[in-house]
Amino acid sequence: MFIRNCWYVAGWDQELAPGALLSIKIIDDPILVYRTDDGDLVAMEDRCCHRLAPLSLGRLEDGCNIRCMYHGLKFDPFGRCVEIPGQDTIPSTARVRTYPVVGKHSWIWVWMGDPSLADEALIPPAVGYDDPRYILRHGNIDYAANYQLINDNLTDFSHLSYVHANSFGSTELWARIRPLIKVIDRGIRVTRWVGPEDQALKPDAPATKRVPDITGPTALFSTYDYLVPGVLLMYSAIYRAQDMPEDRVSWPDAEPIAANFTSQALTPMSETETRYFFSWGPRSVEGTPEMADGMFKVAQMAFAEDKDMIEAQQRIINLKPGNEVLTTADVGPVQMRAVIRKMIKAENGDMAGAPDATPAVLDAVS
Amino acid sequence: MFIRNCWYVAGWDQELAPGALLSIKIIDDPILVYRTDDGDLVAMEDRCCHRLAPLSLGRLEDGCNIRCMYHGLKFDPFGRCVEIPGQDTIPSTARVRTYPVVGKHSWIWVWMGDPSLADEALIPPAVGYDDPRYILRHGNIDYAANYQLINDNLTDFSHLSYVHANSFGSTELWARIRPLIKVIDRGIRVTRWVGPEDQALKPDAPATKRVPDITGPTALFSTYDYLVPGVLLMYSAIYRAQDMPEDRVSWPDAEPIAANFTSQALTPMSETETRYFFSWGPRSVEGTPEMADGMFKVAQMAFAEDKDMIEAQQRIINLKPGNEVLTTADVGPVQMRAVIRKMIKAENGDMAGAPDATPAVLDAVS
Amino acid sequence: MFIRNCWYVAGWDQELAPGALLSIKIIDDPILVYRTDDGDLVAMEDRCCHRLAPLSLGRLEDGCNIRCMYHGLKFDPFGRCVEIPGQDTIPSTARVRTYPVVGKHSWIWVWMGDPSLADEALIPPAVGYDDPRYILRHGNIDYAANYQLINDNLTDFSHLSYVHANSFGSTELWARIRPLIKVIDRGIRVTRWVGPEDQALKPDAPATKRVPDITGPTALFSTYDYLVPGVLLMYSAIYRAQDMPEDRVSWPDAEPIAANFTSQALTPMSETETRYFFSWGPRSVEGTPEMADGMFKVAQMAFAEDKDMIEAQQRIINLKPGNEVLTTADVGPVQMRAVIRKMIKAENGDMAGAPDATPAVLDAVS
Repeated sequence: MFIRNCWYVAGWDQELAPGALLSIKIIDDPILVYRTDDGDLVAMEDRCCHRLAPLSLGRLEDGCNIRCMYHGLKFDPFGRCVEIPGQDTIPSTARVRTYPVVGKHSWIWVWMGDPSLADEALIPPAVGYDDPRYILRHGNIDYAANYQLINDNLTDFSHLSYVHANSFGSTELWARIRPLIKVIDRGIRVTRWVGPEDQALKPDAPATKRVPDITGPTALFSTYDYLVPGVLLMYSAIYRAQDMPEDRVSWPDAEPIAANFTSQALTPMSETETRYFFSWGPRSVEGTPEMADGMFKVAQMAFAEDKDMIEAQQRIINLKPGNEVLTTADVGPVQMRAVIRKMIKAENGDMAGAPDATPAVLDAVS
Repeated sequence: MFIRNCWYVAGWDQELAPGALLSIKIIDDPILVYRTDDGDLVAMEDRCCHRLAPLSLGRLEDGCNIRCMYHGLKFDPFGRCVEIPGQDTIPSTARVRTYPVVGKHSWIWVWMGDPSLADEALIPPAVGYDDPRYILRHGNIDYAANYQLINDNLTDFSHLSYVHANSFGSTELWARIRPLIKVIDRGIRVTRWVGPEDQALKPDAPATKRVPDITGPTALFSTYDYLVPGVLLMYSAIYRAQDMPEDRVSWPDAEPIAANFTSQALTPMSETETRYFFSWGPRSVEGTPEMADGMFKVAQMAFAEDKDMIEAQQRIINLKPGNEVLTTADVGPVQMRAVIRKMIKAENGDMAGAPDATPAVLDAVS
Repeated sequence: MFIRNCWYVAGWDQELAPGALLSIKIIDDPILVYRTDDGDLVAMEDRCCHRLAPLSLGRLEDGCNIRCMYHGLKFDPFGRCVEIPGQDTIPSTARVRTYPVVGKHSWIWVWMGDPSLADEALIPPAVGYDDPRYILRHGNIDYAANYQLINDNLTDFSHLSYVHANSFGSTELWARIRPLIKVIDRGIRVTRWVGPEDQALKPDAPATKRVPDITGPTALFSTYDYLVPGVLLMYSAIYRAQDMPEDRVSWPDAEPIAANFTSQALTPMSETETRYFFSWGPRSVEGTPEMADGMFKVAQMAFAEDKDMIEAQQRIINLKPGNEVLTTADVGPVQMRAVIRKMIKAENGDMAGAPDATPAVLDAVS
């Protein structure tokens, strides 16, 4: 079960040329996205109303319309059939559902729910890969897993110590620290300081090697918002140790030595298939293209490690589902699942079908 | 759901040598077809009554019997067990179902229903590929799609303008013209004239290049019977324009400049798998082997185009079934579906499970 | 449906090094088997109680414990969680199911049922491949078939004449003789003499070629116990004809000319997947490594022949299940199925789900 009143990422905005037809399944709906010659985005059901052939095998005509290449019905950007070859009258039922769609922050966002509720202000404030403040690299991979398992992964970094010991070079520290977690509108906020007395990264790990040479004690800060359906927007930075706030929670006032940003978005294609979009890179002020390349290479290693583990986890769940014994590291996942469950419940009036941790477990760990 | 009282094509008659064991699934039944040393065809359930092993892994013995190569039970051409190794008594239940089978017009036809109703007169009058009147080429491909989607395709040539623009070189004319369609016994008849004022084929298409040089205005005629479960028998010809009947419906009296014939048959293996058999070629009187080869090459291109579209359509239907908005081009498909629905209903007493266009839609377009 | 109170083979004992993690699905349960630095075997559910990730992606620590490499929970050999990183209290529910496990006769045996009933005396007396009495070769293959179809195969050698005519070189004799079959505790015993007047093997078959040159008439003796869930332990030997007992049933008193032993075990992974473990080879007294290699090569040919037939049989059963007409050769399969059915019934209180031949059929052939 999925949230419908939500913006879902369908693809990379800059990479969709006029006339190109992007086909993606989003929460079990076949979706066609294309751009008119005027640059406007169109999202519609990828299913001709005539014989249910995919419109993504069709052809852009007139700079804005799509012709089904099975029997030739033509639709305008509003999904209205404007031509049935050899037939003068076009029934009013001859239309295809369209979806609100917006290109923003390098992503194409499609609203899958009630169009009257599609508010652009709800689009997560990701950082586009052409944002001049950062030097970003980007990519995407597909998972054979439910998106909530990936949400669980991204809202609890205790796995860094085990899954990513080789790529990020994370020490066991990550499994021991508990970040500050706050429920925000449509998601949660996760904030974490790692002080100079801690040893967060192994000295010989690939990720460590790309940190610039710094003299004197330092502290690491990272904070991210995690928003429905599964969007991670994270700022990470290294500060001089003296700039770390005493409460180890607040934003620092000082300028960091180095900082980077990553935007990541999950698109549930079905209950068992998820597309994962991501960008990552250093600030422009101190970063270089080589640094961005190196950082992204490590991130790709890490994403492959996550995929291996989560797909294996999904296979075990398919084989033998069962109760989970949650830990204090699960506050993030539990809070995020609660946000999603609540939204699905609000949309549907009951909780039937919402994958879930039990409220008892939620109480136990929060 | 399928018609059972119907002849289904199991394979190519000439290509089944004595002793060869042909295994094919027809409407979800495993079928074994073989030829005795006397040349007689036998069709039986491809499932030994003992341990349900496939008899198609067996061995022809005595010139006419089949021995299961798991535990050695032997069956005669009537499906009766004639030997159980090491056992004197053979129970009367030890038998395998057989099916009426006929080799005719290069095809092996198997009757899947009540044997007492198996009437050879119901075998569609296809043209065997050894018929001296034509120079025919033949082949077959498998679809991952329900046969009725392919029936829809073959009973409505409006798709030629879009699916086959590159192979047959069909212009948009094909999507605009509406042929004469008549319900006949166990199927429909589709007839179409294209006059000299029309432009049916693109001048540079592969199909066009094989038309012989002709001076003066011409007209195209084609007519086909489409019979259950999905057999297309089509005669196409090019005539001098003055030979086209005024009513643009009748058969011409004159001799054509050139003509060709195609026989095509769909065998539903299951609800989602279909085998498609076909032959095509010019008349012997004006055709050449090179012309037959060229025509068949274009047809194979076109069949691959259909397969791509129809399998994509099937995937969309699997993902999100829904109502179809039919057009005036759908008279053929709707009539043919009605023929099939009516036969399944007659065999089963109700319509449960028969894939279908609604009667309301039928009214709307007929 | 499966017997639970039963020892199942998980793998080869000698081939599991300390620290290696063996993952296998047994009767639909994901199982992890590993060996501690002290050499003890541990079998536990291959599913962390935290987030259900497979522990087989984990790491052996402290010489005996297993750490989940997703979020770092650590479990001792009793399945108790002994560490949750960053958390002081470990809930008593944080544990993973363990299974009785024993390494014996070269196999790792896991008890899938009630641990209090796990009696080592119930482990079938297989012959380990390092037993000095024999020169054994060993291997395993996976079947896409239910294990009971393979049980049927191994409890009725009438199929040798057809399935293995090329490998074992069995003549039609095997399909005609009916061995003595006796129900024993947890299985059946099958005994067979083939006298000098019979022709059991084709003179030019691969299996025949490895029989040592012998002058004078001989007789073949073989006897095997077939035990739940599917363990075959067979002694075969060639004797001088005069040493064959008159009753053609008893064990001979004399020393054989040559003898060999095979141990085979089926592990049902699911209703449609089975792992098949086997060893085979001559006695050390007259055998040579070359003889063992040759014998095993023929056996592997034969096992591939069985796999082809049984997987084809499974596909036919999936497509069209139906009643079986049993023969007098089916006494072994029917008795063995009855043993399994009875045990499943005893464990579950009813017969729901137990694959089965009907009692009527059982009466008919026994």
